[in-house]
Amino acid sequence: MPFKPTDYLPYDFANRRHIGPSPEEMAEMLSEVGASDLDALIEDTVPESIRQKEPLDFGRPMSERELLHYMRVTASKNKVLTSLIGQGYHGTVTPPAIQRNILENPAWYTAYTPYQPEISQGRLEALLNFQTMISDLTGLEVANASLLDEATACAEAMAMAQRVSKSKAKAFFVDRDSHPQNIDVIRTRAKPLGIEVIVGNPDKMDASAVFGALFQYPGTYGHVRDFTDHISALHENKAIAVVSADPLSLTLLKEPGAMGADIAVGTTQRFGVPVGYGGPHAAYMATKDAYKRNMPGRIIGVSIDSHGNRAYRLSLQTREQHIRREKATSNVCTAQALLAVMASMYAVFHGPKGLKAIAQRIHRKTVRLAKGLEAAGFKVDPQAFFDTITVDVGPLQAAVIKSAVDEQINLRKVGETRVGITLDEATRPATVEAVWRAFGIDLKDDDFTPEYRVPDQMHRRTEYLTHPIFHMNRAETEMMRYMRRLADRDLALDRAMIPLGSCTMKLNSAAEMMPVSWREFSLIHPFVPVDQAEGYGILLKDLSEKLCQITGYDDFSMMPNSGAQGEFAGLLTIADYHTKRGEGHRNVCLIPMSAHGTNPASAQMVGWKVVPVQSADNGDIDLDDFRAKAEKHANELAGCMITYPSTHGVFEETVIEVCQITHDFGGQVYIDGANMNAMVGLSRPGDLGGDVSHLNLHKTFAIPHGGGGPGMGPIGVKAHLVPHLPEKSGAVSAAPYGSGSILPISWAYCLLMGGEGLTQATRVAILNANYMAKRLEGAFEVLYRGPTGRVAHECIIDTRPFADSAGITVEDIAKRLIDCGFHAPTMSWPVAGTLMIEPTESENKAELDRFCDAMLAIREEIREIEEGRIDAENNPLKHAPHTMEDLVRDWDRPYSREQGCFPPGSFRVDKYWPPVNRVDNVFGDRNLICTCPPMEDYDDA
Amino acid sequence: MPFKPTDYLPYDFANRRHIGPSPEEMAEMLSEVGASDLDALIEDTVPESIRQKEPLDFGRPMSERELLHYMRVTASKNKVLTSLIGQGYHGTVTPPAIQRNILENPAWYTAYTPYQPEISQGRLEALLNFQTMISDLTGLEVANASLLDEATACAEAMAMAQRVSKSKAKAFFVDRDSHPQNIDVIRTRAKPLGIEVIVGNPDKMDASAVFGALFQYPGTYGHVRDFTDHISALHENKAIAVVSADPLSLTLLKEPGAMGADIAVGTTQRFGVPVGYGGPHAAYMATKDAYKRNMPGRIIGVSIDSHGNRAYRLSLQTREQHIRREKATSNVCTAQALLAVMASMYAVFHGPKGLKAIAQRIHRKTVRLAKGLEAAGFKVDPQAFFDTITVDVGPLQAAVIKSAVDEQINLRKVGETRVGITLDEATRPATVEAVWRAFGIDLKDDDFTPEYRVPDQMHRRTEYLTHPIFHMNRAETEMMRYMRRLADRDLALDRAMIPLGSCTMKLNSAAEMMPVSWREFSLIHPFVPVDQAEGYGILLKDLSEKLCQITGYDDFSMMPNSGAQGEFAGLLTIADYHTKRGEGHRNVCLIPMSAHGTNPASAQMVGWKVVPVQSADNGDIDLDDFRAKAEKHANELAGCMITYPSTHGVFEETVIEVCQITHDFGGQVYIDGANMNAMVGLSRPGDLGGDVSHLNLHKTFAIPHGGGGPGMGPIGVKAHLVPHLPEKSGAVSAAPYGSGSILPISWAYCLLMGGEGLTQATRVAILNANYMAKRLEGAFEVLYRGPTGRVAHECIIDTRPFADSAGITVEDIAKRLIDCGFHAPTMSWPVAGTLMIEPTESENKAELDRFCDAMLAIREEIREIEEGRIDAENNPLKHAPHTMEDLVRDWDRPYSREQGCFPPGSFRVDKYWPPVNRVDNVFGDRNLICTCPPMEDYDDA
Repeated sequence: MPFKPTDYLPYDFANRRHIGPSPEEMAEMLSEVGASDLDALIEDTVPESIRQKEPLDFGRPMSERELLHYMRVTASKNKVLTSLIGQGYHGTVTPPAIQRNILENPAWYTAYTPYQPEISQGRLEALLNFQTMISDLTGLEVANASLLDEATACAEAMAMAQRVSKSKAKAFFVDRDSHPQNIDVIRTRAKPLGIEVIVGNPDKMDASAVFGALFQYPGTYGHVRDFTDHISALHENKAIAVVSADPLSLTLLKEPGAMGADIAVGTTQRFGVPVGYGGPHAAYMATKDAYKRNMPGRIIGVSIDSHGNRAYRLSLQTREQHIRREKATSNVCTAQALLAVMASMYAVFHGPKGLKAIAQRIHRKTVRLAKGLEAAGFKVDPQAFFDTITVDVGPLQAAVIKSAVDEQINLRKVGETRVGITLDEATRPATVEAVWRAFGIDLKDDDFTPEYRVPDQMHRRTEYLTHPIFHMNRAETEMMRYMRRLADRDLALDRAMIPLGSCTMKLNSAAEMMPVSWREFSLIHPFVPVDQAEGYGILLKDLSEKLCQITGYDDFSMMPNSGAQGEFAGLLTIADYHTKRGEGHRNVCLIPMSAHGTNPASAQMVGWKVVPVQSADNGDIDLDDFRAKAEKHANELAGCMITYPSTHGVFEETVIEVCQITHDFGGQVYIDGANMNAMVGLSRPGDLGGDVSHLNLHKTFAIPHGGGGPGMGPIGVKAHLVPHLPEKSGAVSAAPYGSGSILPISWAYCLLMGGEGLTQATRVAILNANYMAKRLEGAFEVLYRGPTGRVAHECIIDTRPFADSAGITVEDIAKRLIDCGFHAPTMSWPVAGTLMIEPTESENKAELDRFCDAMLAIREEIREIEEGRIDAENNPLKHAPHTMEDLVRDWDRPYSREQGCFPPGSFRVDKYWPPVNRVDNVFGDRNLICTCPPMEDYDDA
Repeated sequence: MPFKPTDYLPYDFANRRHIGPSPEEMAEMLSEVGASDLDALIEDTVPESIRQKEPLDFGRPMSERELLHYMRVTASKNKVLTSLIGQGYHGTVTPPAIQRNILENPAWYTAYTPYQPEISQGRLEALLNFQTMISDLTGLEVANASLLDEATACAEAMAMAQRVSKSKAKAFFVDRDSHPQNIDVIRTRAKPLGIEVIVGNPDKMDASAVFGALFQYPGTYGHVRDFTDHISALHENKAIAVVSADPLSLTLLKEPGAMGADIAVGTTQRFGVPVGYGGPHAAYMATKDAYKRNMPGRIIGVSIDSHGNRAYRLSLQTREQHIRREKATSNVCTAQALLAVMASMYAVFHGPKGLKAIAQRIHRKTVRLAKGLEAAGFKVDPQAFFDTITVDVGPLQAAVIKSAVDEQINLRKVGETRVGITLDEATRPATVEAVWRAFGIDLKDDDFTPEYRVPDQMHRRTEYLTHPIFHMNRAETEMMRYMRRLADRDLALDRAMIPLGSCTMKLNSAAEMMPVSWREFSLIHPFVPVDQAEGYGILLKDLSEKLCQITGYDDFSMMPNSGAQGEFAGLLTIADYHTKRGEGHRNVCLIPMSAHGTNPASAQMVGWKVVPVQSADNGDIDLDDFRAKAEKHANELAGCMITYPSTHGVFEETVIEVCQITHDFGGQVYIDGANMNAMVGLSRPGDLGGDVSHLNLHKTFAIPHGGGGPGMGPIGVKAHLVPHLPEKSGAVSAAPYGSGSILPISWAYCLLMGGEGLTQATRVAILNANYMAKRLEGAFEVLYRGPTGRVAHECIIDTRPFADSAGITVEDIAKRLIDCGFHAPTMSWPVAGTLMIEPTESENKAELDRFCDAMLAIREEIREIEEGRIDAENNPLKHAPHTMEDLVRDWDRPYSREQGCFPPGSFRVDKYWPPVNRVDNVFGDRNLICTCPPMEDYDDA
């Protein structure tokens, strides 16, 4: 009998796994938007002039099984040696309960940045724990909720020192014992700001010549020094003291606060977060209370909700670049939330005694190692150390390092004659013995009398982690339940659509996530010899090639580990290009009014002057204004920064002309990749005239948002800019490939989707947005459409009229959406008083309809106010979000409990309940509390 | 400076990870129970006479990191070849989303059997999907929610056929093309029941001579036969027809129902569940509506709750052995719930078209394989096949199989000259080519014209999986949310204590669970050559040795894959011992009244006569009655079955005498291991006089309950019984080591705890139980204590008085506990109208107190009724559990919403809400619906 195969493709195919609507649903949606088929809709939406000429060709997409097999083969080409290189990256033991219940749990990793505090109380609590931990360990009053890495944290500290210092000096001192990558990134950041960087011996520092100084503690070669006197000298000169400190060492050592430091920075990687070939892990910053409003990055604070109950929130958001724009002095946006959560849970799990025990064991092992070396006649430096020593082996340096590799151990090359060894939590006695063997010493891990190699006066005298949260009893059952409770308080992608304009909250598929946990990816130190990272090499090469084909660029740098970092790196690349061509004076950057807030902030950071360009009435760039300003600044024009499709969600046909004008006047074009999810497979920034773009791999390429990070922002450039990439012109991140261990996610996404699947994702993202615009129009005005009336992959709906008609703000609507079981769309950006909705391709029609039903019902509630049928203050919108407690309380409202808590869209059985009512932002900023409140405030059950 | 290490041990230590109370909490609890220290409490509780003499000595406990390293090294000794052996075990592709969100998610794997339906609606829905899937695929009206494996399902079907058949014949016919392990287990089960098993060619079957027959479909060697005529012949003789069918093949082939089959059985392993060296996977059974009340195992049904809303529940529980006891004809208890959930999600994910496409691909590959072999001149058998063929290679059999192994492929040895090949979902073209190479054929996976090798009349004509649940759109986002929603409806160990008497719901730690997912454990076929399973060999040997040391036995059999199976296997071992000694007439088994229900059921299954023994007033075995009955039945005494500590939760000192009496009268002693969590490290059943015991690895040794399975019930025996273990006397499970792939969990538990840690766990389990008994006494009567007033690891509290005093039943209290956020303790067992509470060592004091507070508050609510302060019918107990909907509804009750929904113990922010009110059991049994209700009944949002 002839074989009649079904024409059906199983789920494990790009076009089913990642693409929400089924073929049948798509047909219905196309009919609703009035397009004959998907091709017709795309032709209608994406102008022919900007379409790419050739379809993406990555060969056949892989099945999940093929992918995981291929990933395993690739991973096996990375060699997992024991790296004792140190330099800020340490072996650590990730508690399996944290790995499984946080890193591998979609409830944690698919969450968005906690801008909507009512649905983010779980991760806000975890991040507040992180801040409390940092504040305690450093001995400083206020900490933020993570920065990208230690090196950028150092650079941020330098910039902050400049802001707060009352010294007139223009130089910044850097301890020569700082990690080399910290010095590199500081230099990169200092240059455009006109800061002179003096690297030297702290004992010879001229405190009167600098506005601030950075000390590494312990030093990169192991020294444990007391900087109290240096800091006093700085203070006498009104200069600011920054200490970059290993937080684990601070459980034993005198803390920066006790030395008088103004700012402390560092990385929490060794708090249970694998090195991951450089990242991601959470850096920290802490400072004195007096400087808290000058601290970059996100700060979690404690406020109250509308019933006066305690509620966590992001504090001091007004400092951030999306508000301050060209006045911003830092472009920090995406941080390392997921990794900060992991680090905080590690501290909760171990508690202060456990952390101290871990630090003591490490120190004891290092002392034993040193004694063995000394017994064999080697000279160990320094005398006072925590976990790191160096040994001068003269001309035998290479031989010893090679001998160690034969023992499956990586040591550090220090200078031309020394070898560095850094021990960690994971070091076993056998490892110490193997190190000895590498030095030709045949010793057993004997019982050398334990002793401190830290001078008495350097021992820590103060308590830390005294809060009850760090005194849970360490049984895994309790920890597991704590992590589950926090996760359940939050609303993430694993429960509902998060329709965030330009933030592209799409599926992070399980198959793509799995390799991140594999030891062959997660346990590679960023500074291993290249032959130990061949698997990463294959990944980096292939992913770069695919991104080049997608964008039309000629090469990629994977160094930037966030979108904002990518912008900064891209602009530096342009600046270096101008400089090397003798046009270093070019320093004007044209930026449309509608740009992402990080754009002007990044331009500031490279020392450019931001010239805003007006928008036309239809939201497009005002071409005349653009040309006029380009012409006016022709001699100083460094370039322009634009976003495509525009932040208004429209494919502007003028983009090619904008690029042309910029080039005509000697500038370079930066195209922000935030909206690439509308372009992949359809249009290439490189073809439009872009010279450089960053891609948000955590938006378009399936890396999860992790509740506010990690991110990855690699930059692509045209050939003429390749010699100016950060690898050549100056490091922007601590590690060569940014957050290497999450790159497998984006690579897997490309391999699973194939060129056709990626293109189909883009097309469906556009269909989904147009379908929503269609369903919402009439009830709401949809701002900004293309000439044919289509939107791109997102749409903006105007809620400003309701302020007058009913006294209802965009925030009221956002909070009411929580009652419906949704995270609100982007609020008030790029236009104040609007909502920008981006559904992505991952959402199916049922979910889009659930959201539209909710929005339409909200419109009807507004109409009730407009028509005077319900009170303007006492109504479901103003009381939103409703909590379970509202149901229990006496009810004296003009609407029923059911109307309040179960509006259309809301599930009944599977209802999501926010743990708090509407959070009071003003109260929180006025009464800034950034560490865990005392336990008596916790009165829950 | 001298080193003063902290005396603190970090969490990663046996005594912190698994043991809930901190040292400080333990001190408080000891003071409360009036013991000077833990040693004193244990001495007080566990009589000296039964204490073991030597402490357990397993060497130093491992850290989690050491454990995972050791596990990796061990796992690497298993060789993962591509096994095309078939015989009921197939390669399959587990969708990563299912692996991550179900198999690796504590919300699913830590759940208990859904006896409390209100807190189990999620997994009940998933299991109902499973039943619907099976019912559809087999074409039979009713299916159960999983059995242990295909072989035991065949044996259960035989027993059921005997029950329902109206034929007088005593023989059961078995298709000689059945999988060998099915025949083996049928023989084992048939023998004690006096059933003659006739293995033969179905075409030569004498239908008048049998009460039933089993046909394998497709046959173990690949044949696809139509059994319609054979079944007609059976029916003409009032005999029952059983078909053991591969459910995936049924997407293409005529289904058993269409052939007239009365019962269908089989395994759903290939629905996304890895082979796992034999298990666990879910077997199925389906039958005609007429026989549904005779079906063994658990059946999910649809009922209503107290508000008339749809609610799922376990139906027909009254059939189960814990009710029917010695009248039971099956001892099925633990099933394979977690694996049935996985298989059902696989079907939901793929849908009918996807499953058919998978089956077609497999068939197409097999046809191609056959054509290649035929083209090279080999004779392929059979002509009509689905996925399995055999090739007669004469004397070259060993050479071909060896040649295939060189290609990393396992083929099946069939007879002395044939080689069997079974393809599956995971077979790639390269695999087919490699098989050809093993036969010396050099072919590429060319495009042989696809054709069906199934005769036209064998094609399936009917639809299946028509329910909308199987027509979700396959996007992973939707699937992920569906799995999360179902998980959230249930209350599992990851949110609260599950204080189930004798079911020992303890921590299943993440580190212990991780290796289960490793391919080196999960992808090993149970019938690979032993040199490919050396890792398993190491595990089995070491785990057996540790269990021997723990129990005082001399050897273990890992074959039984549930506790009940272990009982059956243990009794068979005794029976074989008697028989081989010429005392096969011994068939009386003494069983105390308080025994587990599975005990008498198991005794029935080996053909023994159950003689119940009375309890004394204090709950102990009535020694006089025991002696009298042993004496009375001296000549026929096969043995006794006892539980230690007793099911009343007391360490009876008489146990040694009970064993002695049994031995004196020629019997053997079976000690049920259900309560081993009270004994490990303190007392050994082998020392007390036991000859055989089973251990519930899923209770005492950290394997999770999985919502009702998997389990593992290995049996330990004294030396004289070793020659009679099932490996020698007759298989009880399909696979040699039962559910091999979950054994790493128990092994890891032992390695992480060490002997001291295991002992401490037992001690703390006893402390926790005594603390609860102390806190609850006064408010409730605690039944049964030892002579010093102590309980063992569980305690029974009497709720019977409240029936008279307030009309409150034990069920009312159980349901009220749901409002408090708890799974109820064991209800009405071993004493009707009581609650048996077992906290285990994993719970900390805070959780114990939360539970006790809840119970004490419930007592006060009862008092309100007793004192007439609240209505006897309209009160929080009778309305329990309360749902969110109760808060929304109009409220006309004499207590407040707050009192109703937030009683003491209940969390507020983190409140668990049951999705339904109290479920109506009677309605459900009277109106039995065991497949998914039509979609119009689902009207949720």
